[in-house]
Amino acid sequence: MRTVDCIVKKRDGGELDSEEIAHLIRGYVDGSIPEYQISAWLMAVYFAGMGFQETGYLTREMIDSGDTLDLRGIEGPLVDKHSTGGVGDKVSLILAPLAAACGLKVPMMSGRSLGHTGGTLDKLESIPGYTTALEPARFRSIINEVGYAMTGQSESIVPADRKLYALRDVTATVESIPLITASILSKKFAEGAESLVFDVKCGSGAFMKTPDTAEQLASFLVETGRSLDKKVAAVITSMEQPLGRMVGNFLEVEESAMALQGKGPSDLMEVTMRLTAWMLVAGRIEPDVDSALRRCRKELESGAAYERFIKNIELQGGDPGQMEAGFGVRRADLSVDLTAGEDGYIQEVNAYKTGMAGVYLGAGRSKTDDDVYPDVGIVFQKKCGDSVEKDEPLCRIFARDEEGLDQAQRLMDDAIVLGEYGDASKEMILKELPVE
Amino acid sequence: MRTVDCIVKKRDGGELDSEEIAHLIRGYVDGSIPEYQISAWLMAVYFAGMGFQETGYLTREMIDSGDTLDLRGIEGPLVDKHSTGGVGDKVSLILAPLAAACGLKVPMMSGRSLGHTGGTLDKLESIPGYTTALEPARFRSIINEVGYAMTGQSESIVPADRKLYALRDVTATVESIPLITASILSKKFAEGAESLVFDVKCGSGAFMKTPDTAEQLASFLVETGRSLDKKVAAVITSMEQPLGRMVGNFLEVEESAMALQGKGPSDLMEVTMRLTAWMLVAGRIEPDVDSALRRCRKELESGAAYERFIKNIELQGGDPGQMEAGFGVRRADLSVDLTAGEDGYIQEVNAYKTGMAGVYLGAGRSKTDDDVYPDVGIVFQKKCGDSVEKDEPLCRIFARDEEGLDQAQRLMDDAIVLGEYGDASKEMILKELPVE
Repeated sequence: MRTVDCIVKKRDGGELDSEEIAHLIRGYVDGSIPEYQISAWLMAVYFAGMGFQETGYLTREMIDSGDTLDLRGIEGPLVDKHSTGGVGDKVSLILAPLAAACGLKVPMMSGRSLGHTGGTLDKLESIPGYTTALEPARFRSIINEVGYAMTGQSESIVPADRKLYALRDVTATVESIPLITASILSKKFAEGAESLVFDVKCGSGAFMKTPDTAEQLASFLVETGRSLDKKVAAVITSMEQPLGRMVGNFLEVEESAMALQGKGPSDLMEVTMRLTAWMLVAGRIEPDVDSALRRCRKELESGAAYERFIKNIELQGGDPGQMEAGFGVRRADLSVDLTAGEDGYIQEVNAYKTGMAGVYLGAGRSKTDDDVYPDVGIVFQKKCGDSVEKDEPLCRIFARDEEGLDQAQRLMDDAIVLGEYGDASKEMILKELPVE
Repeated sequence: MRTVDCIVKKRDGGELDSEEIAHLIRGYVDGSIPEYQISAWLMAVYFAGMGFQETGYLTREMIDSGDTLDLRGIEGPLVDKHSTGGVGDKVSLILAPLAAACGLKVPMMSGRSLGHTGGTLDKLESIPGYTTALEPARFRSIINEVGYAMTGQSESIVPADRKLYALRDVTATVESIPLITASILSKKFAEGAESLVFDVKCGSGAFMKTPDTAEQLASFLVETGRSLDKKVAAVITSMEQPLGRMVGNFLEVEESAMALQGKGPSDLMEVTMRLTAWMLVAGRIEPDVDSALRRCRKELESGAAYERFIKNIELQGGDPGQMEAGFGVRRADLSVDLTAGEDGYIQEVNAYKTGMAGVYLGAGRSKTDDDVYPDVGIVFQKKCGDSVEKDEPLCRIFARDEEGLDQAQRLMDDAIVLGEYGDASKEMILKELPVE
């Protein structure tokens, strides 16, 4: 098979078959196909797209390029959730113990903060003692014991994705929906998930800025997953403003603990409950979303979900007592309140700018080797649609140094927009693509 | 400047400015930009196209990547002609002495046969003693003496084109009109032409199969040339059937000599005269095509053009007497006549298949290092629109070996199509894009 013929076929709008995709990916990984041919193919994919089946072949080849996690021996439906990334997105911290309390097994592999988006691993590691570096055997045993475990991605999983991503990054081919789809799905399935629920974020703080692109990605994830005989659902959720009222690492642990005790903000609870409900449906524990939602509410109210949370922390080396002692008080030394300059209503809390403020504070990273701090961040008193009076506080910023405080303050001044009229309640769930 | 930003801009439909184009081409030639970024940019160009001005920047950078030929000291308007390649295309051999006889200076750099298309250098070198390997000083002095000289391309001219072409070849980005345009123009202008007339061939034997793509290329050549302040015209000519009645190397020299003595076939003469006339207009020797055509006819009829042809052969080391002695008799030993299987009219003489028959005979090359023979080829007795009777000869094939003869015969059997009705005369000049 000639590589250039595969490129021509894609360039001219054809769908590559499984042999052609295998030729490209295996050849790229083993070095027999040069990068300049792969990058030409990637750009052709950017323009000409890929079919669902073709994206499935790519996903399969990427999975086969490395190890897969063996989760045999775990009883119960293995369901994971994946978010495309947002600001204040602590959904995983709440959803995993809640789903476990409902009877699912959740093998959750998460990422770290990069750019304006937060990272679940960074948040978890702000819990004193908590480790996310788990050997596979330990990962399995914690899932067996408490229903879920939280870890990072293994280096040996999907090496083709790392290699392709590095090339896409320097050849302007990151923003291709089928390539994004194959990258996400290959990692998730290599990590052993049988079923998956996607939280496709849409808005200023999301990778997908428009409902249209979010829906395209959601469709690709669901349809490609189906072509691989996996149960996949997707929920498109709003990421115009930060999710919940806290942005930061330990701040988000605190808000998650509150949520697990029934005291979470409504936007966060709505998104989390809906995603968890879809997981129960995907895992065949509940027949439909409505009964799944009832089940979720029950496990929250009974305290079972919070119990799982505490138990997981203990099993992953953390100290729940020290964590709880930090709630409300573990804050960086410097702080400032942003106040309203006039009476009015909050029109916008720009999620992207809030996320970038988090980077300047040290809650997130601009480069992969930056340090992050547990105790910096932003706590909102007001969010979109709320009325405010002149001089009323809008949010409080916690910082470790004056420079970070200044820059975050400047960004947040810009992020929060006041106006004369209050908007009605914001839709959080924009669209649902159910399990087949 | 970041290379990836240039790729993003092109991918998103922007036009790169001169600095961005310079960054890419210089970086590629000096090795500071990796091939995988250049190939991604090339594929983005394939899909998103380029503007005329942008193509001009690319042409300019490619010219600047190497030497340019210094043709100062030559008096008179320097005008060259370039053909996109065809079958039986011996136009250069006739046009150059004719244009020179009319007062132009023609610095002609030609190519060799590859694939189904013939090569001017191969044809010229079938003249006993004729050399096309001329040092620049000798090239200049022959032009000064007889008005034109014929040579091959120097290795030191436009190295960026050779490097880019090699990459395009393996990344499925050859078929991009702006990239083809920059490749052609950069070589021609680096070779010292002030004005250019393009013969954009269109049809089964041409690179551009449809009038639409031929017109796109012609427009790009003319408009990009203008953006570089050069005088450029283009003529789109038909290449459905071979041009003239002879295909082969020495056979085409013979037909060219006949044409220069006023005995050329009408299709060949029409194309050649029209292109030469546009050269006279581009070189400001004649005010319009009609007066230029009258001038061409005069120089043909007076014998001045044929005189230049003979003089050039002497200056380039050839033996005109030996050449003329070969006319009508210098033919490969094996031959066969193809005859009509029934009464009828010639509907088609497929130029591509004829060209491929030439490759099997050894008139052309399938690989760049193949040998070519002077005395093989095809002589047509009939062409499109002619009436034939059963058993009347259609063409004669001359070959060096039985295998070549068999394969060429099979191809020609297929190439020549008979039918019940005669088509009216075929248009040779499909469109003209005049000098501004």
